[in-house]
Amino acid sequence: MIPRYTPSDFAQLWSNDARYAAWLEVELAACEAMEGAGLVPVGTAATLRAMGLKLDAARIDEIEQTTRHDVIAFLTHVEELAGPSARWLHRGMTSSDVLDTSFAMLLARACDMLLARFGKLTAALARRADEHRHTVMIGRSHGIHAEPVTFGLVMAGHHAEACRAKARLEAARKEIAVGKLAGAVGTYAHLDPEVERRALASLGLEPETVSTQVVARDRHAALFAALALGATAIERIATNVRHWQRTEVGEAEEKFGKGQKGSSAMPHKRNPILSENLCGLARLVRAAVVPALEDVSLWHERDISHSSVERMIAPDATSTLGFMLDRGARLVDELVVYPERMRANLERTGGLYFSEALLLALVDKGQARQAAYVMVQRNAMKAIEGSGTFRENLERDDQVVKLLGKDGIARCFDLQHALRHVDGIIDRSLKGV
Amino acid sequence: MIPRYTPSDFAQLWSNDARYAAWLEVELAACEAMEGAGLVPVGTAATLRAMGLKLDAARIDEIEQTTRHDVIAFLTHVEELAGPSARWLHRGMTSSDVLDTSFAMLLARACDMLLARFGKLTAALARRADEHRHTVMIGRSHGIHAEPVTFGLVMAGHHAEACRAKARLEAARKEIAVGKLAGAVGTYAHLDPEVERRALASLGLEPETVSTQVVARDRHAALFAALALGATAIERIATNVRHWQRTEVGEAEEKFGKGQKGSSAMPHKRNPILSENLCGLARLVRAAVVPALEDVSLWHERDISHSSVERMIAPDATSTLGFMLDRGARLVDELVVYPERMRANLERTGGLYFSEALLLALVDKGQARQAAYVMVQRNAMKAIEGSGTFRENLERDDQVVKLLGKDGIARCFDLQHALRHVDGIIDRSLKGV
Amino acid sequence: MIPRYTPSDFAQLWSNDARYAAWLEVELAACEAMEGAGLVPVGTAATLRAMGLKLDAARIDEIEQTTRHDVIAFLTHVEELAGPSARWLHRGMTSSDVLDTSFAMLLARACDMLLARFGKLTAALARRADEHRHTVMIGRSHGIHAEPVTFGLVMAGHHAEACRAKARLEAARKEIAVGKLAGAVGTYAHLDPEVERRALASLGLEPETVSTQVVARDRHAALFAALALGATAIERIATNVRHWQRTEVGEAEEKFGKGQKGSSAMPHKRNPILSENLCGLARLVRAAVVPALEDVSLWHERDISHSSVERMIAPDATSTLGFMLDRGARLVDELVVYPERMRANLERTGGLYFSEALLLALVDKGQARQAAYVMVQRNAMKAIEGSGTFRENLERDDQVVKLLGKDGIARCFDLQHALRHVDGIIDRSLKGV
Amino acid sequence: MIPRYTPSDFAQLWSNDARYAAWLEVELAACEAMEGAGLVPVGTAATLRAMGLKLDAARIDEIEQTTRHDVIAFLTHVEELAGPSARWLHRGMTSSDVLDTSFAMLLARACDMLLARFGKLTAALARRADEHRHTVMIGRSHGIHAEPVTFGLVMAGHHAEACRAKARLEAARKEIAVGKLAGAVGTYAHLDPEVERRALASLGLEPETVSTQVVARDRHAALFAALALGATAIERIATNVRHWQRTEVGEAEEKFGKGQKGSSAMPHKRNPILSENLCGLARLVRAAVVPALEDVSLWHERDISHSSVERMIAPDATSTLGFMLDRGARLVDELVVYPERMRANLERTGGLYFSEALLLALVDKGQARQAAYVMVQRNAMKAIEGSGTFRENLERDDQVVKLLGKDGIARCFDLQHALRHVDGIIDRSLKGV
Repeated sequence: MIPRYTPSDFAQLWSNDARYAAWLEVELAACEAMEGAGLVPVGTAATLRAMGLKLDAARIDEIEQTTRHDVIAFLTHVEELAGPSARWLHRGMTSSDVLDTSFAMLLARACDMLLARFGKLTAALARRADEHRHTVMIGRSHGIHAEPVTFGLVMAGHHAEACRAKARLEAARKEIAVGKLAGAVGTYAHLDPEVERRALASLGLEPETVSTQVVARDRHAALFAALALGATAIERIATNVRHWQRTEVGEAEEKFGKGQKGSSAMPHKRNPILSENLCGLARLVRAAVVPALEDVSLWHERDISHSSVERMIAPDATSTLGFMLDRGARLVDELVVYPERMRANLERTGGLYFSEALLLALVDKGQARQAAYVMVQRNAMKAIEGSGTFRENLERDDQVVKLLGKDGIARCFDLQHALRHVDGIIDRSLKGV
Repeated sequence: MIPRYTPSDFAQLWSNDARYAAWLEVELAACEAMEGAGLVPVGTAATLRAMGLKLDAARIDEIEQTTRHDVIAFLTHVEELAGPSARWLHRGMTSSDVLDTSFAMLLARACDMLLARFGKLTAALARRADEHRHTVMIGRSHGIHAEPVTFGLVMAGHHAEACRAKARLEAARKEIAVGKLAGAVGTYAHLDPEVERRALASLGLEPETVSTQVVARDRHAALFAALALGATAIERIATNVRHWQRTEVGEAEEKFGKGQKGSSAMPHKRNPILSENLCGLARLVRAAVVPALEDVSLWHERDISHSSVERMIAPDATSTLGFMLDRGARLVDELVVYPERMRANLERTGGLYFSEALLLALVDKGQARQAAYVMVQRNAMKAIEGSGTFRENLERDDQVVKLLGKDGIARCFDLQHALRHVDGIIDRSLKGV
Repeated sequence: MIPRYTPSDFAQLWSNDARYAAWLEVELAACEAMEGAGLVPVGTAATLRAMGLKLDAARIDEIEQTTRHDVIAFLTHVEELAGPSARWLHRGMTSSDVLDTSFAMLLARACDMLLARFGKLTAALARRADEHRHTVMIGRSHGIHAEPVTFGLVMAGHHAEACRAKARLEAARKEIAVGKLAGAVGTYAHLDPEVERRALASLGLEPETVSTQVVARDRHAALFAALALGATAIERIATNVRHWQRTEVGEAEEKFGKGQKGSSAMPHKRNPILSENLCGLARLVRAAVVPALEDVSLWHERDISHSSVERMIAPDATSTLGFMLDRGARLVDELVVYPERMRANLERTGGLYFSEALLLALVDKGQARQAAYVMVQRNAMKAIEGSGTFRENLERDDQVVKLLGKDGIARCFDLQHALRHVDGIIDRSLKGV
Repeated sequence: MIPRYTPSDFAQLWSNDARYAAWLEVELAACEAMEGAGLVPVGTAATLRAMGLKLDAARIDEIEQTTRHDVIAFLTHVEELAGPSARWLHRGMTSSDVLDTSFAMLLARACDMLLARFGKLTAALARRADEHRHTVMIGRSHGIHAEPVTFGLVMAGHHAEACRAKARLEAARKEIAVGKLAGAVGTYAHLDPEVERRALASLGLEPETVSTQVVARDRHAALFAALALGATAIERIATNVRHWQRTEVGEAEEKFGKGQKGSSAMPHKRNPILSENLCGLARLVRAAVVPALEDVSLWHERDISHSSVERMIAPDATSTLGFMLDRGARLVDELVVYPERMRANLERTGGLYFSEALLLALVDKGQARQAAYVMVQRNAMKAIEGSGTFRENLERDDQVVKLLGKDGIARCFDLQHALRHVDGIIDRSLKGV
């Protein structure tokens, strides 16, 4: 989590202040639930809330220097601020009850912040898909011209993928929104499942089915996998932008700010640096998946090896994805599209992309596939070698003309026909939101 | 996919025979749907089916030596077998229509085979959880004795995790059961969405929302993440078995076959080799996740870089997980549990694990937490240093006796009370299946 | 290791036959060294060698069904073939003495096979670098035209990287060519360091500094890292080829076999499928690194979790890299280069790539950098907007002409001058072999 | 790089101040070299150095808000401070000349800082190896008792591995200590190889063999692999400590600070939290390897996708390893070893670990291996079943006594003999430093 790639709301979410505030929320929710169960004097939590305690993160860190235990330092500080009523906090609880429950709250919030951003990305993709439904460009497989598509169709494909990524994150959010107030080894030795249920419900969380000392870490690993899939969805958009913007292609480019300089020396340079940056960041988000998986197999009722990993990857991966979604949505929204250049590139091969249409038309007229292939190929090859356009050659090929007629040939060179289903596909994607 | 770690049904699933059979299924389903749309003479597929074509994988490979294109080799072979009616196959389709659709069929079948195995694993875990509900053992955090749990509770925790892994695989199966019959760049230039819908429905698949030349690869990456989470759930079980079986712990061990030799020289050796093997295999399944994520960002309408990756990781990761589930279910099912040894280990610390109960009892009697801690600690420390048991020391401590009475002390040393919620937790997990 | 991506020598190297043959080599080498130390009757190994034992892998596997221990099965089979003299084999040794030592032999051979292939790759790169020293093409940063380079220079860059990859593999080979004959826990309880030293020397190996039951696994992890770096070096070549071959760039392309078909329908298609394939394979080789690292931290004197991992990744990663090197060397060797197309692309921007030369010339004439930048930019921008070429505009710009003179301007447009150091750089790389 | 896991010298190394200071070093070194080549007025660098420029990182960041180009912002700020002489800086250079060269300087320094720490780790391991040469403990394979080793031998094994990790880092340092002053696409269009050579030499760097716009990224990937291997070497130590410290084993434990609390409730808890933390951190360092490998295949003469990755993983991986080495060295240095407990654990199996010695002694007396095995096993099994000790049983077994004599049996139960080579092995490792 370096400032350069951290949106401010994520910086806030993962700050010490937010962390300690979440701990206090957990303690107070637990206290209230215990009041209901008669374990703690009624009104304790209300009294503490009324004090409007202002936690001082620096002070907690200072106490931790002595206690070498962060939750004890926190409780000591709360007692400093609140006096004797604080002693009812943390009753029968273990540190992980606070840590894992508050971590679930923060991760759920991070998911919410990401889901809102996904909404912006899908909206931008939907808008561009709709705008460019009929902006024709050449489809490319292997980087080589294949058959025509539209720019809107490509955007619709990215839209569908972003929607899937969002749905996976929603599922992961549900899995991660799980806390525990089940004590040292998950047996509620000095606690009660009903107290847990109520306290967690007030925090928007479900109870862990079977806790050990901690919430099970497969839930977290599943979240990191969902984050990686989200980042990768953006990487695919960015990769396409990088291709479109290459000098020789020039079909779309990142918005170039006024006064922005591509190079200190070469005034003609406009580089797709946002997209390249997004490709790099995707590698970072992906890199969190394996450590998160390695964290799952804790020994017995838990070891603490996952903790250092999570201190790094939870802020890093969520905030980096947050940054990517912001940048990705803006990239899509502001992408400068060059329909004329698309058209010019499309025309480079003189309609060769209709060769399959001709092949099928000849087969429909009863030709064996292989024979039809030969007829198409000889006319295509001539065109490639520079003699006539593909269509001209076909119109001069007696055998072809005899079978299809000039009208039949013309029908094959029908871009609108080739793209007749594009509107339907785009609608399918946009309705899926 | 090496024989050693490949269940026979997976060997069959990923054989060339099964692969080509799936291709034929796709071609025939497409043919039937085209018949319905009037694109192909009615009855073509039925005629071909009636022939009972026996595909010869070796012959296809031989033809591919010439064509250097696997789908063309396949079609040529079908034509060899079926004669002229075969020419109606593959009409307007691109190779990826066949490849990706049949790949979806095979992956969905692999998921089904894995889901059935997950059922066996969760059943075994549920049975052992129920059987050992009240088999007390010491809970350990950081490898150090903490407070008591039961062996059934631990099994229930693994059960809950395995159920989550299964649910994720079900979700991934749904995402992956998606084919395409949308042509060279996904525009249905010579095809029709309705034909696709019908053909795929007859194969148990949904159509891709927006195809490029291929089905989007984020679906596959999501599947590999689900496989990795499944493998990791088993790794956690295996890690615990390895700990239980250590010479010094000895609380459970892998079933040792009659005539099996742990070591050629040391007759006392019984090694947890199945569990160690499962830990290694989990690393392999996890290793498929990042390549699968790298496959997503294909260039433009597709490049073929994903293909070699999938040829390796799809058979490898699914069959390795299949093997792990078989082995894992048997491991759990046959695990030899030693309740007396668990009890003996539990008693090593002379009831020190009740220290928290005493602490809370003293706090309930009005002692400040810190004062109570000191009272408990002094009696614990004496016991650790070898002078009396913890309980004896407490009963000789006037201050403690005055506050709690001997009865009060006795109540703290109540294992049944400490574990009173265990049944409820186990039921929660077992009902969740 | 699927046949599609496995060179035949690697298929042989990792066959059961080769595996068992290596075991026998180890046993005989150990036997001979023990003869020298008086532990075994002199001549035993010679007698056994003279028998020309023909190991039958299938028979060994059959015996293993009973013994469930591969090394014991092997020894039993040797005894079947050789009779009583076989009982002197394996004296005081543990299975891992045989397994790890023979594994080191096979890995060292795999390295040798890879190093020879690296030699072919670097030779091909060197040849093309030399051939195209002066074949000018535009250099691109961010996919956007920057300043000129030569195709030979690019090849020389790949050559230098391939040489580094080779050197790293040589270092890794040295680390991995290490065996052990140190017994069950590495103490030579029934063996002798001197026997180990001699036996290993005869096998071309060094002894492990400190063995546990096994050779330390950091050595293997270092090897897999070196393999991944080798695969990645080829990926970078392949990525560039894919860019060069794109329809709009067209500067180089993979050799297209006679009769090869790019597409069943589109005769104009020539796809860079070899290069795409290499990019996919690189992902697979990289995927072995993390599991290999996870294998290092075996418990105590060893657990067997590494074994399943190595059974898969050792054959997979080495043979896949072997395949990549073969394919990569041929790709480079046969790459069809289009110097005219390179020249045409270079000229697309009308010499704008000389803008930096002009900037520096103006600064050398005493202009402040910022002022010079403005002078260059205004003439560049006119050209970009379609009014005159860059050079024409400069020659019409009084201020510029006054400072540089027409001759001075001409000197800036000097491709030969811009590339005057290219020969030196290429030589630097080629001499480095 | 979070404060919790960042040694202060790494925090300083990766600060903005150090970054900009390194840029200035590069500019001045380049300036001096250009003076020597007559490209810049002699004395320029000296003049600038004499000014003792105090770079203000905040001011540079402020300027970057406008220029959106960090190197230009830096140069502008230098000009603010130094006036007109600054215009001679950066002559003919591209931003990457500064960025990559200074990055190499920082990485080389990071390597030096790590190498010094490796020295402390290997020294601690050597000291403990020497101290505990003869501290006998049971060796364990698969977590199960095998044959005796000594604690010093185990330390010597870790020592040898740490030395290998150090040597790999030294090799990686050499690879990474490479800069470039070769201009926009590596052709020295406005520069000179000799100027580069001199400037880099004064900075302690070698020139890149063939630059593109940047230094080749395989060098960086090799470094991250070396870092991961270093982290993994520490993980193996930490894993062993975690095993030794388990309640049931208790053979060694982390130093427990005065006043440190293992648990807020359980005074008997002393958890191996440092070691668990080291295991988690190793996962993080390993996670940098794949992104670093993905960074290698930049497009054409470069794209900028590697930049964001390196901004995160370079500080993260180096400082985390730095932290691990500090913590790991202290862990080893202060590890509390319990020889009596080792001896007690060793004796748990009543000398069964000598079974192989007996087997071999019987074979030496002419018994067939299988017959000898049966004799040993029947006496071992009795002992395991609780009837007599292994040795007693052997001494009562007529067949055995007849073959070996009581003396012969006694000789097999000779711990000193079994460990006679340990000193030699330890010396081999310690001399290897």
